Amino acid sequence: MASSQAPTPKTAAIVSRPSRPEVGQIFPDLLKWLADHEFKVIIDPESGKYTTGPEVVLRSQLASRELDLVIVLGGDGTLLSAARSTAAIDVPLLGVNLGSLGFLTEVPLASLYPMLEAIARGTASVEHRALMQCQLMRGETVRGSYFVFNDAVVNKTALARLNHYDLYVDKVFVSSYRADGMIVATPTGSTAYSLSAGGPVLMPTVQAFVITPVSPHALTHRPLVVPDSTEIEILLRSSDEVAYLSLDGQPGLDLRDGDRVVCRRSPHQVNLFRAGSDFFQVLRSKLKWGER
Amino acid sequence: MASSQAPTPKTAAIVSRPSRPEVGQIFPDLLKWLADHEFKVIIDPESGKYTTGPEVVLRSQLASRELDLVIVLGGDGTLLSAARSTAAIDVPLLGVNLGSLGFLTEVPLASLYPMLEAIARGTASVEHRALMQCQLMRGETVRGSYFVFNDAVVNKTALARLNHYDLYVDKVFVSSYRADGMIVATPTGSTAYSLSAGGPVLMPTVQAFVITPVSPHALTHRPLVVPDSTEIEILLRSSDEVAYLSLDGQPGLDLRDGDRVVCRRSPHQVNLFRAGSDFFQVLRSKLKWGER
Amino acid sequence: MASSQAPTPKTAAIVSRPSRPEVGQIFPDLLKWLADHEFKVIIDPESGKYTTGPEVVLRSQLASRELDLVIVLGGDGTLLSAARSTAAIDVPLLGVNLGSLGFLTEVPLASLYPMLEAIARGTASVEHRALMQCQLMRGETVRGSYFVFNDAVVNKTALARLNHYDLYVDKVFVSSYRADGMIVATPTGSTAYSLSAGGPVLMPTVQAFVITPVSPHALTHRPLVVPDSTEIEILLRSSDEVAYLSLDGQPGLDLRDGDRVVCRRSPHQVNLFRAGSDFFQVLRSKLKWGER
Amino acid sequence: MASSQAPTPKTAAIVSRPSRPEVGQIFPDLLKWLADHEFKVIIDPESGKYTTGPEVVLRSQLASRELDLVIVLGGDGTLLSAARSTAAIDVPLLGVNLGSLGFLTEVPLASLYPMLEAIARGTASVEHRALMQCQLMRGETVRGSYFVFNDAVVNKTALARLNHYDLYVDKVFVSSYRADGMIVATPTGSTAYSLSAGGPVLMPTVQAFVITPVSPHALTHRPLVVPDSTEIEILLRSSDEVAYLSLDGQPGLDLRDGDRVVCRRSPHQVNLFRAGSDFFQVLRSKLKWGER
Repeated sequence: MASSQAPTPKTAAIVSRPSRPEVGQIFPDLLKWLADHEFKVIIDPESGKYTTGPEVVLRSQLASRELDLVIVLGGDGTLLSAARSTAAIDVPLLGVNLGSLGFLTEVPLASLYPMLEAIARGTASVEHRALMQCQLMRGETVRGSYFVFNDAVVNKTALARLNHYDLYVDKVFVSSYRADGMIVATPTGSTAYSLSAGGPVLMPTVQAFVITPVSPHALTHRPLVVPDSTEIEILLRSSDEVAYLSLDGQPGLDLRDGDRVVCRRSPHQVNLFRAGSDFFQVLRSKLKWGER
Repeated sequence: MASSQAPTPKTAAIVSRPSRPEVGQIFPDLLKWLADHEFKVIIDPESGKYTTGPEVVLRSQLASRELDLVIVLGGDGTLLSAARSTAAIDVPLLGVNLGSLGFLTEVPLASLYPMLEAIARGTASVEHRALMQCQLMRGETVRGSYFVFNDAVVNKTALARLNHYDLYVDKVFVSSYRADGMIVATPTGSTAYSLSAGGPVLMPTVQAFVITPVSPHALTHRPLVVPDSTEIEILLRSSDEVAYLSLDGQPGLDLRDGDRVVCRRSPHQVNLFRAGSDFFQVLRSKLKWGER
Repeated sequence: MASSQAPTPKTAAIVSRPSRPEVGQIFPDLLKWLADHEFKVIIDPESGKYTTGPEVVLRSQLASRELDLVIVLGGDGTLLSAARSTAAIDVPLLGVNLGSLGFLTEVPLASLYPMLEAIARGTASVEHRALMQCQLMRGETVRGSYFVFNDAVVNKTALARLNHYDLYVDKVFVSSYRADGMIVATPTGSTAYSLSAGGPVLMPTVQAFVITPVSPHALTHRPLVVPDSTEIEILLRSSDEVAYLSLDGQPGLDLRDGDRVVCRRSPHQVNLFRAGSDFFQVLRSKLKWGER
Repeated sequence: MASSQAPTPKTAAIVSRPSRPEVGQIFPDLLKWLADHEFKVIIDPESGKYTTGPEVVLRSQLASRELDLVIVLGGDGTLLSAARSTAAIDVPLLGVNLGSLGFLTEVPLASLYPMLEAIARGTASVEHRALMQCQLMRGETVRGSYFVFNDAVVNKTALARLNHYDLYVDKVFVSSYRADGMIVATPTGSTAYSLSAGGPVLMPTVQAFVITPVSPHALTHRPLVVPDSTEIEILLRSSDEVAYLSLDGQPGLDLRDGDRVVCRRSPHQVNLFRAGSDFFQVLRSKLKWGER
């Protein structure tokens, strides 16, 4: 809460995961708590399926509002979406998991109100996570520009055996890769797809991104960790229709030969209210470290 | 040559890689040699672009002829295609590489005629490689049945983050995989895509197949080597349009939820005329072993 | 039981894991059951710490007795030891785990007597596992010859950065490795150290061994699966005192420059009485497959 | 050269790799060039085997001299040694490789004098590399404190199957590892042993260290990248005589149960004169990237 002593009414947004009936049971009490604490509330359309009353605002419009708090009811996927949607306004997010512990949503439902009390008191701790800004370039044209919290992935389609990618860091040529795909991940994303593809875990406080090739043909190609102050560019050097770009695991965008995906650290960041658990507790729990 | 002493005229088929002008220069001498040695010659349509004279037969029709020899002018990809096309008739293949050494086409152009002489004398050594028969099953319907020399791959499309696959070996449940894809590879295919995905190298004489998950979500999932006498079944447990089946790196076939890919060792095998080099020489050369 | 109809008295050996007080509580009932079923009983010295009465025989002497059954009370380590000790006489083993499920000792204590009843009736199923015979050669001298159930490992000492090994399969040179070490594993051993070093899982019925380099300098070196009919030879090409040979995880034997470790499939095998669970059940449970 | 305009005579140290006769041929010209450019010269004992004249100073004593330049004639190993020896005085090093390109010694002999001229003119570019300070702690006693340029490695001896290590970052528990060993590597060291053990490549400018377990028993344990501002502690939780500590690949120091290895970024750094090639050129060349 940037200014918890401000007399102006505060606004909270609620973003929910679809098709989880238990979410509906949370709303009455949650809306009451927020009203009691003088929060104006807006909700996303998914939340609108669980409750009526608050104004419904498209996720893509959330960043046009002045928000003091975003409450996410769901898993890491829902939080990724909410974080991207509100990245431009640097509002803090409270991720509440509805079942299993998430890397990002490590607050269990049982801790929701204690956390909200701490937020209201201004004593809740906030963790800052790096965010990427990725652009899809076709020639000199910017075809799209995206906030990316986990990873930007270029991958092959059913028409390709493997693709040819050139990697540049700060416009310096790194290497040509023949591979299924290429992943550019934030520290947050290092525990997602990049990990499955053989990448390392990056502590959230490391000022770096990791570039992980997916099933590279050359066995010597390994994940590469670069400062997050660098510009990372992946150039597709294969024919049309053989590759797509996927951001944070969203359905892919078609790529053409010569398309470039350019990623930099965003000036914005994601601000997460954290319950007590440290990163390594979550890591041990999620990866079942030490259990074999 | 099954019966080199037979008085009946022998037939050789020539299969060529497209768009390699140097192939055209090979034909006059090669056709003369084959005529001198009483071979009837048929050629595939790609070869038909380089020469006229011999009868042109579709690759898919080659197995309907009685062949004594298949000469492949190209790389491993061309040989894979020729091997699948002629798998049903167990004819030996001579793979001639036109540039870099291949795993399968390790005979350089300079050795073509010495090799042909050895074949004519009956002194050329033949290596036998295992072949798979893979079926795409939808319910109880066989949607397709294919010879596979390298690998059968189920992989995700641009619409999927990762898919859910169940693996069975001899109808015994092995595990559920959340992964990009699943590879079932022959020993020959173990040095292709499976290797890029983290699989081991199988000597060609190992009577086994290897099942390699591609970027599995569970870090404990590892490549699994099973006897080639087993039946391997991969069941897709994701929605429609999220996965495709690719055989030996060919463009993918769409899969639906519940589709099953069933692979067994084929009663047929691939018979390769070998020049002197052993498997490990090729391996060291192709993988640049020991060079770091 | 090779000959369950034989009128001659049968002999059972009991081998125990040290320092597990609960083992002591098993003995009275177990000895009574065996007496009731006309088994003569011998025990190893570790078992002798838990009970008196039966004749105590060194593990290394067990193979000099005519045994019909070996009962192992402990974990996989104890069973490995018992299996090596009795390898020469092909006696079946019953592995009873005292706590967590083992790859080899998958019979829980609660199933001990049902399993023994089934063994007595001749209805218990026996699984056969391949065993290696490994020799340490110095010049033409055989310095030692060992039964190996899991793996033979050559590894570096504290004096070495990495060592130089040459690998031969059936006396054909495979490659030079600069690495920490080299593992030769049976299918049974493929889920032990080889797996940690990046090797694949081999089904117990695969007629193959896997050779896995440990932290190889060349990133292109990968695990290699070879038929179990081959002879595998690792030649140490580094100075003295930089490497040792460890068999089934036992304390290492010093190696000298030029020493060779030669492994072949043993004519003997390990015969394990199995409870109902199949290999993949154990694998899923031990590796926590599918749990991330 | 911190102060190229200083009128005081400058001092250069020369450090050489042993047993390379070609080094001897470099000295006459090199000493003449240094004399002509008013350098006082001291040499290490290894260099003393190739030339007479300059004062011989033990490597361990180099840091007690006021040096303006260290010239290293050898490979990366020699440069690692020279860098550790002079770390306390922040003198720049010029690494000249005598054969194959090194990660650190990328100046070929042919470029020695152009590089020296550039250094004398003050136009040579210097690259700064992070250095670690590692301490071996036994209880509250500091048993040793070391500059480490590549990596600190705790590894197992011939007496151990695998060891038990606890990892802490900034005194927060990360995980227990059952593994052969644990590597803590600088970005410079990320291309050495850590890479062989499965670690990522870190660009030299990344402000991070990587912790890579060697053959971990738990398949979910992955390399971990942490900010170089953290304190990394590895606690040995196994019996005596089963582990040793090796620094930059030097022969190992015996460890006891309970010993701790604590690594931090050193306030000093390594300053390398660079020829033109960028990091990725060296990487491509050394790792043969893109060549399969």
